[in-house]
Amino acid sequence: MVEAVETMDGWYSLHDLRTIDWDSWKLASDAERQEAIGSFEKLVTKWDAVEEAKNGSHAMYKVVGQKADLMFMFLRPTMDELSELETEFNKSKFAEFLQPAHSYVSIIELSKYRPAKDGVDPETLPETQARLKPILPKWEHICFYPMDRRRQGEENWYTLEKDVRGKLLYEHSMTGRKYANKIKQFITGSIGLDNWEWGVTLFAHDPLEFKKIVYEMRFDEVSSKYGEFGEFFVGNILKKEDIPSYLHV
Amino acid sequence: MVEAVETMDGWYSLHDLRTIDWDSWKLASDAERQEAIGSFEKLVTKWDAVEEAKNGSHAMYKVVGQKADLMFMFLRPTMDELSELETEFNKSKFAEFLQPAHSYVSIIELSKYRPAKDGVDPETLPETQARLKPILPKWEHICFYPMDRRRQGEENWYTLEKDVRGKLLYEHSMTGRKYANKIKQFITGSIGLDNWEWGVTLFAHDPLEFKKIVYEMRFDEVSSKYGEFGEFFVGNILKKEDIPSYLHV
Amino acid sequence: MVEAVETMDGWYSLHDLRTIDWDSWKLASDAERQEAIGSFEKLVTKWDAVEEAKNGSHAMYKVVGQKADLMFMFLRPTMDELSELETEFNKSKFAEFLQPAHSYVSIIELSKYRPAKDGVDPETLPETQARLKPILPKWEHICFYPMDRRRQGEENWYTLEKDVRGKLLYEHSMTGRKYANKIKQFITGSIGLDNWEWGVTLFAHDPLEFKKIVYEMRFDEVSSKYGEFGEFFVGNILKKEDIPSYLHV
Amino acid sequence: MVEAVETMDGWYSLHDLRTIDWDSWKLASDAERQEAIGSFEKLVTKWDAVEEAKNGSHAMYKVVGQKADLMFMFLRPTMDELSELETEFNKSKFAEFLQPAHSYVSIIELSKYRPAKDGVDPETLPETQARLKPILPKWEHICFYPMDRRRQGEENWYTLEKDVRGKLLYEHSMTGRKYANKIKQFITGSIGLDNWEWGVTLFAHDPLEFKKIVYEMRFDEVSSKYGEFGEFFVGNILKKEDIPSYLHV
Amino acid sequence: MVEAVETMDGWYSLHDLRTIDWDSWKLASDAERQEAIGSFEKLVTKWDAVEEAKNGSHAMYKVVGQKADLMFMFLRPTMDELSELETEFNKSKFAEFLQPAHSYVSIIELSKYRPAKDGVDPETLPETQARLKPILPKWEHICFYPMDRRRQGEENWYTLEKDVRGKLLYEHSMTGRKYANKIKQFITGSIGLDNWEWGVTLFAHDPLEFKKIVYEMRFDEVSSKYGEFGEFFVGNILKKEDIPSYLHV
Repeated sequence: MVEAVETMDGWYSLHDLRTIDWDSWKLASDAERQEAIGSFEKLVTKWDAVEEAKNGSHAMYKVVGQKADLMFMFLRPTMDELSELETEFNKSKFAEFLQPAHSYVSIIELSKYRPAKDGVDPETLPETQARLKPILPKWEHICFYPMDRRRQGEENWYTLEKDVRGKLLYEHSMTGRKYANKIKQFITGSIGLDNWEWGVTLFAHDPLEFKKIVYEMRFDEVSSKYGEFGEFFVGNILKKEDIPSYLHV
Repeated sequence: MVEAVETMDGWYSLHDLRTIDWDSWKLASDAERQEAIGSFEKLVTKWDAVEEAKNGSHAMYKVVGQKADLMFMFLRPTMDELSELETEFNKSKFAEFLQPAHSYVSIIELSKYRPAKDGVDPETLPETQARLKPILPKWEHICFYPMDRRRQGEENWYTLEKDVRGKLLYEHSMTGRKYANKIKQFITGSIGLDNWEWGVTLFAHDPLEFKKIVYEMRFDEVSSKYGEFGEFFVGNILKKEDIPSYLHV
Repeated sequence: MVEAVETMDGWYSLHDLRTIDWDSWKLASDAERQEAIGSFEKLVTKWDAVEEAKNGSHAMYKVVGQKADLMFMFLRPTMDELSELETEFNKSKFAEFLQPAHSYVSIIELSKYRPAKDGVDPETLPETQARLKPILPKWEHICFYPMDRRRQGEENWYTLEKDVRGKLLYEHSMTGRKYANKIKQFITGSIGLDNWEWGVTLFAHDPLEFKKIVYEMRFDEVSSKYGEFGEFFVGNILKKEDIPSYLHV
Repeated sequence: MVEAVETMDGWYSLHDLRTIDWDSWKLASDAERQEAIGSFEKLVTKWDAVEEAKNGSHAMYKVVGQKADLMFMFLRPTMDELSELETEFNKSKFAEFLQPAHSYVSIIELSKYRPAKDGVDPETLPETQARLKPILPKWEHICFYPMDRRRQGEENWYTLEKDVRGKLLYEHSMTGRKYANKIKQFITGSIGLDNWEWGVTLFAHDPLEFKKIVYEMRFDEVSSKYGEFGEFFVGNILKKEDIPSYLHV
Repeated sequence: MVEAVETMDGWYSLHDLRTIDWDSWKLASDAERQEAIGSFEKLVTKWDAVEEAKNGSHAMYKVVGQKADLMFMFLRPTMDELSELETEFNKSKFAEFLQPAHSYVSIIELSKYRPAKDGVDPETLPETQARLKPILPKWEHICFYPMDRRRQGEENWYTLEKDVRGKLLYEHSMTGRKYANKIKQFITGSIGLDNWEWGVTLFAHDPLEFKKIVYEMRFDEVSSKYGEFGEFFVGNILKKEDIPSYLHV
């Protein structure tokens, strides 16, 4: 049996994608639409307050293509808070015009592939804590996809020795480093929580960077031999102040 | 032909997941909603009585994410009782506001990989009987997923000799033992009953333990080489007394 | 090219699974429900008459879990009769409250892997004819699943020599024989008729026997190396006289 | 790079499967149903005229099982004509009671695996032209399924030399020849047109022949090693004069 | 780790497929239908103006078969413009009669497998710029499909050396060149943007050329060993002036 690697785990994460029912939205009265927009803005205000208090974070994007219209990413200290948030959203007036499109449950994760430096547990460091409980950037574009590590015959991530895995991931991180100012990346672990093993959420000012980084990384051995990828969702930021114009019909 | 292993089988199990139709719930009158909540509470009271009489058990959780809103796990001595329970639920006022989301049919199972001690059939022991007809814990969180043992070329669980299988499962159980106080695990067999070979239901006080145990176990040979996994569902407990507030709109 | 094996083929088979729309059922008036139940009972009476005349057979079960509510298995001498039966069912009052859930088209099949005894074609024997045109048992439980024989690299059923296939199937039948009084098994061939190659329908007094036989058989080489399995459906018998109480709301 | 094989291509083909919405059909008034039947019969009359003028052909069958109720196969000289036919059907009164179930776009295809005889291009022969622009038989039963040639490791149709492919297909055609009077087979190519590489449409007087030929052919190397198969649809002929009784409620 | 290849990237692309709800279309009043057609024509006029100003391009086709009724391909300089276009379409009167069928997000892409000539970066050449920001042809037929490069054991595109990939793609381009006057091909990259790695969009005067080129190319090693293909969509052009007659009921 090979040795697993300890992980450091931070805030729980919920990706929540919804499709707008434009037909019923247009059939609604102006007053109803105003009520719905108001209920949505009130939720966003509440989420903003949580973020300001550093008790969580969220992101809000317009999905390109028909997979969904809206993608939310919510971070909270507990799964109960995620659940409450989701239920409150479901009960809102605005949700009457939304259909569920997709969701993903995971938790912010960092790996401890490298040994403690000078006997200091990296989890105790402030920079680690900041990465485990991050405030999501308000960058213009988002990309989300889930992934697995392959377990097939000779290509089995889970039968590789720990140091081999560490080396492959280190090389992979070197590719990522090239995109340091262009991409902000958040890895969330979902083994035991959702259908894939990890979620990857990327933020960029230029969406072409999503293609560049994922393409270049695909040649890293950790991806070319051991990566299995799910659906990709991309979106453009939806700012709170743009909600009324976005929903104006 | 290799030798199978005898199993000990207990109560039948039904995982039943439902999505709340919040739109029609909000459109309903107060009186209708009260009637629906009443019908639901009455069912729970009935299920509680069965559990108190040790004729079965049940669990009730709020699913996180859009896969469903509610997950029930029911244990009963016969498949007929499961069927009656399900039909009664379907006919209830509350079910008018629910949509089917997923279900899973299985039976509590223990394996006899290890030989009888001192000639005593382990199935006759009181502790075995308690494990075959368990009262499900009322812990804060649940995780459910189905799984298969792989049958592909060199990686074929069903062509391994019995003692090899026993050894691999023993190692696996050692990993599980580390989580003794953090996770309660129930294995249900579903070969011949549903689409996967086994169901795994975990209960925890801290949902992070779901990720930790499933992640660590994935490096056990029995999982890394022979495990195939289906969808994962996680949830937070819904207590009977919290039903009205959960459903309040 | 390896040699195929002749099959003996009997009655055509249709598995027909339906989900009850309990909402519209409850919304219907008492009179409508009575009319629907009456139309259903009339159909069953008709099917019973066909069975008594030995011109076909049928089975009627309540499915456990959400895959469907009702599973019918119909046997008829021709595909036209199956089609007429299905259309008549679709036009019935009861069908207004049913949604299609699944179906499977196949034909009762016996294999001629073993040579003719004393020059007698086994197909002409009365016991063979009885197995090709069987009256389905009215046992308490049913299990249905479709299956393929694998064609992958070294594990290719269709490139095995005929005598090897015969030997593997003979061993498999020996496992089945152990369940002679507990399980009644019907194999229906569906190559060229539906999505899988065969359907397997099992009847039992005790549903645990479904798990026992399918589990034990999975270790037979014919299953461990060459079996691919589809969805499993299990159910409890619905007797004609229990229709009103089952549908009572 | 291995050499492809030229194909001879004839009429474009559209398989169009539809499900009857029996509920709305029964809710409609007699007059509406008459109008719908009339619109359907008018279309069939039009299609018949095209067939009589040898500008195309069509087939009309009742599907067995729940995959669809009606299967149409249309042949036309151009894809535009198929599209117009489909749009006209969609706009018809009858289509208001139909739901789309499946479709398949392809083109009648013959392969030129064998060399030209005496320097004559086989495509110019009258018998070839007749096969490329066929009038579909009005036999009692139909079977349709799509298929691919496998491209996996050692089992890769597209890396085999042309003469090996030719030899395997010739053997396959010999199996087919045994069914000359029992089965009429039409191969339609769909690479670049639909999701699979080919469609196979079989007609028979006795549907058991579908099972016999597909089963026997599965042992041909071209199928056992290189065949991948999609969904199978089978049906019984619907004659124009039987439309009113089929739809009578 | 093998070396990736730089790409040149042009306009963002959205394939948007919709199904017409003919039932509600026919139920609408003449005035409503006129309003819907007018809203659609107004959008097309707007898109035409963008194309004339060389700020983007679009294509509009009627899909053959039931996968969709309409396929649009939109090219724009930014993903934001695609998103705005899509939202404007969703809010239009015409969209009230459309259902989403499929979509695909990608970006026009050219590969730099061949070295710069005489030190000139090919991306700066006018002919390259024209190919990166193309005006889509108004040819009679379209074919769209997504694809991946395989990563399986020995057949792993992403572990091949750069020059091997370049050689295989060069051979592939030679096959394509044979179709120079018959097919216009647009490759769009979608790694990090949508579920597959690339999209392929072909235009032809004769749809048989789609089959010919895709069939012939399948024997190129880059396809036979390394190509994985998704759904294929084919269609006939819908000209703006034909919208009223196409939608006339």
